Amino acid sequence: MNAARDAADPAGYRALQRPAGARHIEVIDQRALPHAVVRTRIADADAAALAIRRMWVRGAPLIGAVGAYGLAMALDRDASDAALERAHGALDATRPTAVNLRWALDRVRAAVASLPAGERADAAWREADAIAAEDAAINRAIGEHGLDLLLQVARRRPGPVQVMTHCNAGALATCGWGTATAPLFLAHAAGVALHVWVSETRPRLQGANLTAWEMAQRGVPYTLCADAACAALMRRGDVDVVLVGADRVARNGDVCNKIGTYDKALAARDSNVPFYVAVPSPTIDWSLDAGESIPIEQRGADEVLRVAGRDEFGQTQVVSIAPHGARAVNFAFDVTPARLVTGLLTERGVTRPSAEWLAAMFPEHARGRRAGP
Amino acid sequence: MNAARDAADPAGYRALQRPAGARHIEVIDQRALPHAVVRTRIADADAAALAIRRMWVRGAPLIGAVGAYGLAMALDRDASDAALERAHGALDATRPTAVNLRWALDRVRAAVASLPAGERADAAWREADAIAAEDAAINRAIGEHGLDLLLQVARRRPGPVQVMTHCNAGALATCGWGTATAPLFLAHAAGVALHVWVSETRPRLQGANLTAWEMAQRGVPYTLCADAACAALMRRGDVDVVLVGADRVARNGDVCNKIGTYDKALAARDSNVPFYVAVPSPTIDWSLDAGESIPIEQRGADEVLRVAGRDEFGQTQVVSIAPHGARAVNFAFDVTPARLVTGLLTERGVTRPSAEWLAAMFPEHARGRRAGP
Repeated sequence: MNAARDAADPAGYRALQRPAGARHIEVIDQRALPHAVVRTRIADADAAALAIRRMWVRGAPLIGAVGAYGLAMALDRDASDAALERAHGALDATRPTAVNLRWALDRVRAAVASLPAGERADAAWREADAIAAEDAAINRAIGEHGLDLLLQVARRRPGPVQVMTHCNAGALATCGWGTATAPLFLAHAAGVALHVWVSETRPRLQGANLTAWEMAQRGVPYTLCADAACAALMRRGDVDVVLVGADRVARNGDVCNKIGTYDKALAARDSNVPFYVAVPSPTIDWSLDAGESIPIEQRGADEVLRVAGRDEFGQTQVVSIAPHGARAVNFAFDVTPARLVTGLLTERGVTRPSAEWLAAMFPEHARGRRAGP
Repeated sequence: MNAARDAADPAGYRALQRPAGARHIEVIDQRALPHAVVRTRIADADAAALAIRRMWVRGAPLIGAVGAYGLAMALDRDASDAALERAHGALDATRPTAVNLRWALDRVRAAVASLPAGERADAAWREADAIAAEDAAINRAIGEHGLDLLLQVARRRPGPVQVMTHCNAGALATCGWGTATAPLFLAHAAGVALHVWVSETRPRLQGANLTAWEMAQRGVPYTLCADAACAALMRRGDVDVVLVGADRVARNGDVCNKIGTYDKALAARDSNVPFYVAVPSPTIDWSLDAGESIPIEQRGADEVLRVAGRDEFGQTQVVSIAPHGARAVNFAFDVTPARLVTGLLTERGVTRPSAEWLAAMFPEHARGRRAGP
C-alpha cells in the first residue's frame, strides 16, 4: 500500500536522490525555492559539507542523509582511518543543533570502521542508502499515525481540518514525504478536507519558501501568515491542531525545533489547541536528559537584516530592511518544554512527551532497562 | 524641565509638524524609512486620508492628529455641515482599529459644530493643534512614569536594563517622544544603561524600519530580532521588561495592539517577565467592556507575500517570498487579554489592567460614577 501511495504521489519532487549506481547524489538547491527548482549534483564530501552549512539542503533528517553520503564520498577518495575521522569531523561541524547529522555520521562510521580500507567506501554507500530508505519508511509510518489524528479531528466536526505548521518539516526536509507533512499529504490523498496555516518562519522563510511550495505542488489548500499572526489565529478558533517537526528531542520530551516553535506551543496551550511534534526516532537524543543542554545554532545577523526574494522581473534580489549598521540576533532554534507538547508523533505511534513514555516506546534506548509506564 | 529635555533631544525628527501659521502639515513619509527621511506636505483632507490609509503615517496617536488636521483642511475648503460630516466620515473610514482616530475626529467636530461656518476652520486648526500638543505632553508624562519603572529594574541588578518592544510605539507614532519609547529616551538621556530588543514586526516591519531607526537616531543600543525569536530571548533571561504600545484598550484592560503582541505577552508570562503597555488615555475606548469586540483590520495579502527593502545599489525593491498564487492572511492587530498584562502605563501613572483600576485612575470616564478600588 505504501509503495502504491508513493507511486501515486502527484508531486514527485525529491529533496535527495542517488541515481542508480552513481557515486554522487542529486539534491534540490533549496535556496532557489519557491521561484525555481534547481537540482545540484554533490560529488564530494567538501560539497556535501558546504551544502549543509549554506543550507542548500536543510531539515534534520535530510542533513543526516546528506552527511552520510558525504562520508561515503570521502571514503571513495581516501578510505584511511585518518580520512574517515577527518571527513566525519568536517561534516559534523557544519551545523550543531539537529542530532540526526551526528547520528547518521556515527552510524556510517560504525558500519565501516572494522572493515579493510578497500571495502569501506562501498559499505558506506550501502549504509547511507539504508539511512535514506529508513527515513522514507519512518516518514510513511509517521504519516499513518498522524493521519489517524487528523481523521479524529475530521470526525468531530464538519469543514476542513485546520492544521498549523511552522518552518518546513516536509518532503524537502527528509528523504520521503516529510515528518510533519506526511500526515497532511496522506490525508489529502485520502480525500480528507484539509487547510494548512503556514507560518512564514523568519528569518529564512522556510514556511513561505518551502512549505507553501510543497502544499502548492500537491494541491493542498493553504494560507500563509506572518509568524506573529499564529497566536491570534489560534485564539480566533481557526486552528484545530498544530503539527511541527523537530531538530532534536531530549529524553524527557523537550523539543528543539525552528525558532518560533516555543511561542506557538504557548499560544496553543492558551487556546486549548493540541500541539503535536513529528519526531523520527533518529531525532531523539537519548544522551540528553532535558532540552536546556541542546546547543542552539546562532546564525549570521544578515539573515535577519536582509530578505531574499524575486523582483517583478523574476530576478533574485536581496533587500535590506534595517538601518545601516543595525545589529541583529539570530538563534536558529528554540526549545519547547515537554509540558507544552500534547504528543510526540513517532514512527511507532503517538506518545506522551516524557522520559517514561518515550522509554516505553523505544525500550532499546531506555537507560538501565527502566520499566516503562 | 520637560522643555529643557525636549530642547536637548539630539534626534529632533518629528513625525508631524505644522509650520507656524500654515494651513497644511508636514509629515515624514514613513514608507521610505529607515533608508531615507522623506518629508511630505499634506494640504487637503483627501491627502490626509490617503496618508493614513496607505500608512505614510501610522501609529494610533499620530493618525488621530493627522485626522484632526485633515478635518481642519476640509473645513478650509467648505465649512458646511454636510462637508464636515463627509470629511469626518472619509477620514474615519481609513483605518478601523485605533480608536484615537475616531476620538480626535469627534473632538474636532464637537469643537466646531456649534460655531458659524465662518469660524469653523480656524477653530478646527486650534483644536487639532491642541490634540497634537496634548499628545506630546501625554508622551512626556508616560515617559516620566515609565522612567521610574526602568530605574527600579536598573537598581535591582548591574548591567543594562534589557527592554523588549514590538512594532513602533515611538516618536514616529505620535506627536512627541512616543508612548513605549518615551521612557527609553528619557532613561537614555538620564544616563541609564539600556539595551532594547526590537522585534522586526512582520509583515510591515515597523520594528526593523522604524523603531530600529529611532534607536539609531538617538544612540540607544538595540538589537533587532525576528518576531519568532522574542519568546526564546525571554526564556533565556535576556529580557527584563516588555514595553509595547496600544491601538485600542477596552475598559477592562484588554489591549489591542500590533499583531504579535499577544504571543509576546504569553511568552512574558511563561518566563515571569513584566509586560507593560504604554496607553495614552485617548487610546482607551470607554464604550467597550472587553477586547473581543474591537474591530481588527485585515490588510492586503501582498504585505505578507512581498517584502520591501533596499538593494545593494540603494534602490527600493519589492521582492516576492512565496510561490506564485499563494494566499495569505493579514490581521494587522491582535488582542492581549488583560490577565497577561502586568500594568498599563498612562499619563497619570501605572495602573492595573482592570475596569476598577482604570475607572479609579480616570474617574471622569467611569460609568455610573462607580467607586474605584
